[in-house]
Amino acid sequence: MKIAIIGAGAMGSRFGYMLQHSGNDVFLVDTWKEHVDTINKNGLLVEENSKLNSIKIPAFLPEEVVEIPELIILFTKSMGLKPMLKSINKIIGKNTQVLCLLNGLGHSETISEFVDIKNIFMGVTLWTSELIGPGHVKLTGSGNLEIQNLDPTMGVTAKKICQTLNDANLNAIYSKNVVLSIWKKACINGALNSTCTILDCNIEEFGQLKNSKKIITKIIQEFSQIASKYNIPLNIDEIVKNVEQTYDPNEAGEHFPSMHQDLIQNHRLTEIDYINGYISKKGKEFDIPTPYNNLLTILVHSKEELLIK
Amino acid sequence: MKIAIIGAGAMGSRFGYMLQHSGNDVFLVDTWKEHVDTINKNGLLVEENSKLNSIKIPAFLPEEVVEIPELIILFTKSMGLKPMLKSINKIIGKNTQVLCLLNGLGHSETISEFVDIKNIFMGVTLWTSELIGPGHVKLTGSGNLEIQNLDPTMGVTAKKICQTLNDANLNAIYSKNVVLSIWKKACINGALNSTCTILDCNIEEFGQLKNSKKIITKIIQEFSQIASKYNIPLNIDEIVKNVEQTYDPNEAGEHFPSMHQDLIQNHRLTEIDYINGYISKKGKEFDIPTPYNNLLTILVHSKEELLIK
Repeated sequence: MKIAIIGAGAMGSRFGYMLQHSGNDVFLVDTWKEHVDTINKNGLLVEENSKLNSIKIPAFLPEEVVEIPELIILFTKSMGLKPMLKSINKIIGKNTQVLCLLNGLGHSETISEFVDIKNIFMGVTLWTSELIGPGHVKLTGSGNLEIQNLDPTMGVTAKKICQTLNDANLNAIYSKNVVLSIWKKACINGALNSTCTILDCNIEEFGQLKNSKKIITKIIQEFSQIASKYNIPLNIDEIVKNVEQTYDPNEAGEHFPSMHQDLIQNHRLTEIDYINGYISKKGKEFDIPTPYNNLLTILVHSKEELLIK
Repeated sequence: MKIAIIGAGAMGSRFGYMLQHSGNDVFLVDTWKEHVDTINKNGLLVEENSKLNSIKIPAFLPEEVVEIPELIILFTKSMGLKPMLKSINKIIGKNTQVLCLLNGLGHSETISEFVDIKNIFMGVTLWTSELIGPGHVKLTGSGNLEIQNLDPTMGVTAKKICQTLNDANLNAIYSKNVVLSIWKKACINGALNSTCTILDCNIEEFGQLKNSKKIITKIIQEFSQIASKYNIPLNIDEIVKNVEQTYDPNEAGEHFPSMHQDLIQNHRLTEIDYINGYISKKGKEFDIPTPYNNLLTILVHSKEELLIK
């Protein structure tokens, strides 16, 4: 199967490598020129269990791509999605299936501006990966993913995409309610990313704070109120527990959330507008007060202004 | 007049020096032993216009004081007020007048547990000062203060206290509504202290943020709702303007608010519970939502937990 990985960061590179390894015809697309050039010159360096392999896999800048693939997997940063779809619009064929694996909320609306709804598939993944430098990815741990068709008539196709992913050992399952899973993951990100970023702490340190439960409960309550407007029933207590499980150092405790890595460690813009900021925006639209998400969004944007000159 | 300065930090030392200079019999009381010992050994070093003078002025630890003064001026940190009043309870005489010049809200309630209401005088000051180290204070700029009796029958006494302060060039005026002035100052502190602390920026940097007006307006709106429960009418637009005036580098712009100095720079506990935290506490009591002040209070306390081990 001809597959384009759009956004070849840590996760995109991992998926691209695994899908090529299982026999697909894969190419990578990314906006980071040094990364693309390095992959084309030296192959993609894949580090796994302390072994380093150089994998030959074609990589392109968005403006260079010409081939229409059968499957596109979207793995850009949230704020890069729309400009990327504009750039690669010419390779989105009439029958190209588009699977979105981005973090955050609101992406299906953006994709549907460029792709027929019957070709849109939404997913959520717990795989992890680490980009060491240009052209160099480190595979960490194991994971899985859930996917589902956005158009109710496209279930069979979604299951075929699952099969392609499973042939590459990506542990895909067909979900009957991927939107619920996407919202649950967004809640976890919404509870931990902005708070650990603003407080400059890792997940375990956050979990040990006297008021961590109070903060995450308020954040998740507001997510839940917006979700209910889309008939998505979020169980607040269950999600609070899910967040609290990540505090364990054997789980994610020792890690800094990706937003902290982006902003505090690397002075890069964050995905806040697609997590807490999405709740804040929808709160205004629906006239539902979401003050905790409002203030956290404003504080993260303020910190972006202060750190990114 | 025999005057005790209770809490001889930057401001207490300044007031103590100026009041002694104008002929009063002043002694200082502070919990910081090294500071007290240094003053008793070398005098209080007063730096003014690049000149350094050593001023002989008695200083005591709270447990050492024995003399009952005619006037007590309270200048402790907010969280030190109650323990200090317990320690010095024995020198609060039946006719000792007690003037409170602390920042923050809620202090008159605390003082009235120890002092007859007719002897309580509330004030607010714009003087500034800097403590360079133990026994060493630097006088910066000029200032003034407003004071008023808490008991309506005690106006004449309040005016006499004003006179004593004015004889020391402290520019005191008798106020007909000092509580309003205290709340206005608390609003300014509430808008700038917690935000600059959480964002780790100075006042000018904060003022340049795209969302600074939105944040301070929300904070001040919540202050105003609580104030109205005490029949204190706060003009939100006017206070927003007052806050914005401080952004100017010729005003306070280049400074970090005291809470930033306390927590971020010196890893000391903050006065948050007497500023935003007071609004948050009263919001719960009156069942008025104060989410911005709630979250800012929680974030500052969380930062205290992370930075103070």
